[in-house]
Amino acid sequence: MGPAILVQTPRGTRDFGPQEMHRRRIVEAQLRQVFASFGFKEIQTPTFEELELFTAKSGAGIIDELYAFKDKGGRDLALRPEITAAVMRFYFTSLKMEPKPLKLYYFSNCFRYDRPQAGRYREFWQMGCELIGDPSPVGQAELIALAVQLVDAAGLKNYILRLGHLDVLRAVLDASGLSKEGRKELMRLIDKRDVKGFTAALPDAADRDRLVRLFETQDLEGLRELADGAGCDEAVESVAVLLGRLERLGVDPKRVRLDPSIARGLDYYSGVVFELDAPKLGAEKQLLGGGAYDLSDVFGEPSVASLGFALGFDRLLVALEAEGAALAEAPGPDVHVAALTEASMDAALEAAARLRRAGARVELESTARAPKKALQRASQVAAAQSLLIGDRERESGQFTLKDLSTGQQRSLTLEQLEDQWRPRVAAGSQARPPTG
Amino acid sequence: MGPAILVQTPRGTRDFGPQEMHRRRIVEAQLRQVFASFGFKEIQTPTFEELELFTAKSGAGIIDELYAFKDKGGRDLALRPEITAAVMRFYFTSLKMEPKPLKLYYFSNCFRYDRPQAGRYREFWQMGCELIGDPSPVGQAELIALAVQLVDAAGLKNYILRLGHLDVLRAVLDASGLSKEGRKELMRLIDKRDVKGFTAALPDAADRDRLVRLFETQDLEGLRELADGAGCDEAVESVAVLLGRLERLGVDPKRVRLDPSIARGLDYYSGVVFELDAPKLGAEKQLLGGGAYDLSDVFGEPSVASLGFALGFDRLLVALEAEGAALAEAPGPDVHVAALTEASMDAALEAAARLRRAGARVELESTARAPKKALQRASQVAAAQSLLIGDRERESGQFTLKDLSTGQQRSLTLEQLEDQWRPRVAAGSQARPPTG
Repeated sequence: MGPAILVQTPRGTRDFGPQEMHRRRIVEAQLRQVFASFGFKEIQTPTFEELELFTAKSGAGIIDELYAFKDKGGRDLALRPEITAAVMRFYFTSLKMEPKPLKLYYFSNCFRYDRPQAGRYREFWQMGCELIGDPSPVGQAELIALAVQLVDAAGLKNYILRLGHLDVLRAVLDASGLSKEGRKELMRLIDKRDVKGFTAALPDAADRDRLVRLFETQDLEGLRELADGAGCDEAVESVAVLLGRLERLGVDPKRVRLDPSIARGLDYYSGVVFELDAPKLGAEKQLLGGGAYDLSDVFGEPSVASLGFALGFDRLLVALEAEGAALAEAPGPDVHVAALTEASMDAALEAAARLRRAGARVELESTARAPKKALQRASQVAAAQSLLIGDRERESGQFTLKDLSTGQQRSLTLEQLEDQWRPRVAAGSQARPPTG
Repeated sequence: MGPAILVQTPRGTRDFGPQEMHRRRIVEAQLRQVFASFGFKEIQTPTFEELELFTAKSGAGIIDELYAFKDKGGRDLALRPEITAAVMRFYFTSLKMEPKPLKLYYFSNCFRYDRPQAGRYREFWQMGCELIGDPSPVGQAELIALAVQLVDAAGLKNYILRLGHLDVLRAVLDASGLSKEGRKELMRLIDKRDVKGFTAALPDAADRDRLVRLFETQDLEGLRELADGAGCDEAVESVAVLLGRLERLGVDPKRVRLDPSIARGLDYYSGVVFELDAPKLGAEKQLLGGGAYDLSDVFGEPSVASLGFALGFDRLLVALEAEGAALAEAPGPDVHVAALTEASMDAALEAAARLRRAGARVELESTARAPKKALQRASQVAAAQSLLIGDRERESGQFTLKDLSTGQQRSLTLEQLEDQWRPRVAAGSQARPPTG
């Protein structure tokens, strides 16, 4: 054994303790429930992929943000920075014969070599989905309603869904009379939300006055004005229909704001795009982003309409915490079992085993304890009830179950003790998959 | 966009489709339930760590099996090959002031650059636990009973727990009169279960006859004979006590076999060691391995008794499949909702949204369909019930819910429809964390 080491978690990564994991699993379960209620099914892809998958989707520029490495066979691999590319690889290699629409969701860790800051980590978790093979406006509305219902189900109070349409954005830019190169540069500045750089890039005052409205437009009336004469009336009207559908799907219209400046960066996005913010989080306020896209070119496959989004799970938790949401405490054991004498230890083991098999969460004291000390331990672990087993209990087969919040005591046989938990199991408390 | 690519999953990694993920999540939930019933709480550590953490624990030899890489800051990192080192790092950096015993479990993916074969992947999942700060024999018995109950809960029929004690193994080797170097080489051969190499390394026939019994001994009587005169009577008797406790804890004695040849490879293991096999799996039959250890030296910290094991989750699934276990099918939606006319689409959206919020899993048809086609789609997605919404339904507010297995139809208002699911939620079916 070498000299002692003191190792920390790598920069930008985290350990999660029991309390934090409990909270994360609670929110995860709430989100899974929503995905299931919309008919989405979970899939999982590898943690690393061939580097080419990510560069083909996002361009060589992404390499700077990747954890890329060669394996011992010389293959170029990278830890996934996002999941959509992998889902579409999975789709094109294995799922394309499945009946459409395919509704797939994932909950996976992703990795970016990024400067760590509040709500931004080098290893972070994304929950997201892809709706594949459903180009219908109703499918769009459903997916966006699903996004909103996710943050709703997690209990977030302050959020805004921003909704844009790339046909409108492109048409407005095209109508500006700028060169193709100039428009491309503008798209880049818009995507970075660099309003200052954007206005500086527009030498013509009339262009500036018109195009800056991309950032100011928030409602349908404004969108119609902005798009007037740009030749994208159909897109504008599809946004109007979408707004109505979202309301039917239970999305509060006060939560929805139009934002024609959403660019989503990459060329294969088209049509509807959306982002969801938690305004309280400041610079890192964006919790979710998505839109319609078609990655079939990347894989040399026939076109398939796809629509997806990814929710930053860590950031959602930061947003919930910033709102002071009442986060669930990890529950203590149902019963704390302690032997009062060495001779009673076997009886304590048996009681613990039977209660566990009946469905109870049991903390067993691993050495014999005096009653006072045993009760102290039961409180320390926040047990709901305490079961002390001494020679009398062992011999009589009558056990005393003490409720630690009321102090109430009941004398029960082992069978009666088991029955305390069995009915709970029957009512639906037994092992249950996180998916619905 | 570059030329089209055809990317596969990297060698030794897998995509999991909806059906397989559903099965994995079911088994995962069963196992989590068992950990919770024993009072274990979940933690999570980063996917990669500083390389030094793994070499300090397992020696430089492990580098050959690691996905090791430098980050852009020049730090040596590695994808975790196992979780125990990380848990102990977490313990020593952040958890050592917590009340003892600490009962921690994890469900995490690990990575080994290994030749892929049946049940052996380069990315694989481990579910395991560490019991920290409880050196008691009862704690040992509990941990081993927990290991057995995990595979039991998953429904595995054929398995054997093998139980050894390193004090016995070391004493028997010490008594052989071999040199220290010779004994070290023997330990290595034992750990590889290389019985042939092992007997070849023993020139003395008397040594051979005695030491080969390490591999043959299966019960307490045999263990006593093997250890006779080797000066490890205390360890042998602790095994006898442990066997009794396991039985009290509900472990079927027919499942337990002694195996003094279990070596667990590494120096910081001591005392009780155990492995659990699914004999049907042949060469890759070991599902689980664990024992008592003390990693404090690695971190230059005061000694802390620890006991843990890791279960190969993928291999458990292979074992279940090899037994032809009835694996759960992913359920279809509770209700398939379809609009029969474009004009009824808004009503269909509203019905779907309200049913979902009441707790139902709803598949909404995203375009208007004729009744026959809608019912076909409902069967195709394996929905339990179908809700067709036409102009009559929209106008009257009376909806017809059809049970697709019985053909029975009921006419209900939207409120009555919601009530079909609300009671189920009240009985315990709502979002629930995977941990108990």
